[in-house]
Amino acid sequence: MITRTPFSNMKRKVFFLSDSTGMTAENLGKSLLAQFPQIQFESITRPFVDTLEKARKVAAEINQEAHTSDGRPIVVDTIINKEASQIIQQTDSFYIDVFSTFLSPLETELGVKSSLTVGHHYIFAEDSQSVDEAYMSRIEAVHFALANDDGMQLHRYHEADIILIGVSRTGKTPSSVYLGMQFGIKAANYPLIPDDLEIRKLPQALVDHQSKLFGLTIRPARLAEIRHERKPNSNYASLRNCVDEIKEAETLYRQYRIPYIDTTQLSIEEISARMLQRAGIERRVASL
Amino acid sequence: MITRTPFSNMKRKVFFLSDSTGMTAENLGKSLLAQFPQIQFESITRPFVDTLEKARKVAAEINQEAHTSDGRPIVVDTIINKEASQIIQQTDSFYIDVFSTFLSPLETELGVKSSLTVGHHYIFAEDSQSVDEAYMSRIEAVHFALANDDGMQLHRYHEADIILIGVSRTGKTPSSVYLGMQFGIKAANYPLIPDDLEIRKLPQALVDHQSKLFGLTIRPARLAEIRHERKPNSNYASLRNCVDEIKEAETLYRQYRIPYIDTTQLSIEEISARMLQRAGIERRVASL
Repeated sequence: MITRTPFSNMKRKVFFLSDSTGMTAENLGKSLLAQFPQIQFESITRPFVDTLEKARKVAAEINQEAHTSDGRPIVVDTIINKEASQIIQQTDSFYIDVFSTFLSPLETELGVKSSLTVGHHYIFAEDSQSVDEAYMSRIEAVHFALANDDGMQLHRYHEADIILIGVSRTGKTPSSVYLGMQFGIKAANYPLIPDDLEIRKLPQALVDHQSKLFGLTIRPARLAEIRHERKPNSNYASLRNCVDEIKEAETLYRQYRIPYIDTTQLSIEEISARMLQRAGIERRVASL
Repeated sequence: MITRTPFSNMKRKVFFLSDSTGMTAENLGKSLLAQFPQIQFESITRPFVDTLEKARKVAAEINQEAHTSDGRPIVVDTIINKEASQIIQQTDSFYIDVFSTFLSPLETELGVKSSLTVGHHYIFAEDSQSVDEAYMSRIEAVHFALANDDGMQLHRYHEADIILIGVSRTGKTPSSVYLGMQFGIKAANYPLIPDDLEIRKLPQALVDHQSKLFGLTIRPARLAEIRHERKPNSNYASLRNCVDEIKEAETLYRQYRIPYIDTTQLSIEEISARMLQRAGIERRVASL
């Protein structure tokens, strides 16, 4: 019997398996494993395991790890094909079978059998729109975010669902793109430059779209760090300048009652989810 | 007892609950429910349920639905706080408790207790890099994709992990951005325009980076559809032109042994995952 010492420098291999992209296995698996910060995990994703032959190959790889590592590997399996999953299950691993765990009770609840279609994308569409429409709306929203990045194409703001504003490097661009990619939300973004801040009025381009505005802010010290990466030792990156810009931007947000969010400690996913919630914008379809 | 008729126009409300962004609940839930195409699901995501008061409010909302809908709602719960989860569990719903299901056996396997930290982002970092580094590499990769979109900034190709090429509207831009956002992979993209295709040689800008190239192709009929949305009744969108451009692009790919992928039936997630697999590029960290 192996006794493991907590808080030691423990390492574990993790396999995320899927007959599709592997995103569900990765997302779920990483959420679970993040609850064990004492342990270092090293992850391997094996997507498109959509034949028994590929399953056997991955099984061999897992068993190989079991013999060479400290502890047996953890396997997060989202392969839908039962025969393929059984091959994986027989490996020397700690085995999490995501679909089997939940699909069987769901079949009972819903009174129908699951389709268990293998190897193709699992698309979940709201009933109000087709899968294809949902997909195209995401693509279109990504193109929209790019075309309306950094204050470009001001005349298309009437099409925007939301317009992110903030000083340089507060996270506007990644957030705009993510909103389009994940939710099909059309997000434009407009940089508040020193000229805008000086006049202490909402830039003219934004005046007609005030209800769509959402402000980003960040702690000045963090902003200075990020800007130093981009332009070391510039006035742009100086803490003093960052303090001033942030102070003026926040004053503007309050003056015009623009909702805003501090992005300092947040991931792109969190910034986006919080903005949608605050702005009362419904998430649109995302496919996997 | 309610008897449900399969293949009828069945509808079910689904709640995705989280004390964070809700992405894990949505991803897992949608993957599961996509296995039941007979049933129409209407989803409601409630992120940031990070207090008992908020849990009670959502519980009331679920019970309200249970009384007004055909079947009781399905609840996919990824709230980590046990007290909050118990409030949700007592609702009149089909209840899936994602974390409880898997965390307890994982604790046994790993020999340590989970941190059960509530309400903050669950970041999973590979041991080779810090969480902050991982996050910054994603942001940087998104900015890289935007700066190197559509053939811009040719001189930065040496920094790219991969360079996507293809004729207009084959999915280069969304795929490049997704690779950065999700995996921290720096993807540039270069559009093959008719002038490039006519000379039947690799454009000069790409010659020095041949090993990084990955081609996108698509069925001409689908390409014509997509282009018609953008420029109706143009030569650009005509089926004949699309057939020619795709044929020439694929010839170029084969001539230079550039790996390529048909994006016709694939989501952005699938295109990206397949490209990384084919190109042998390891996924980098993604946070949730």
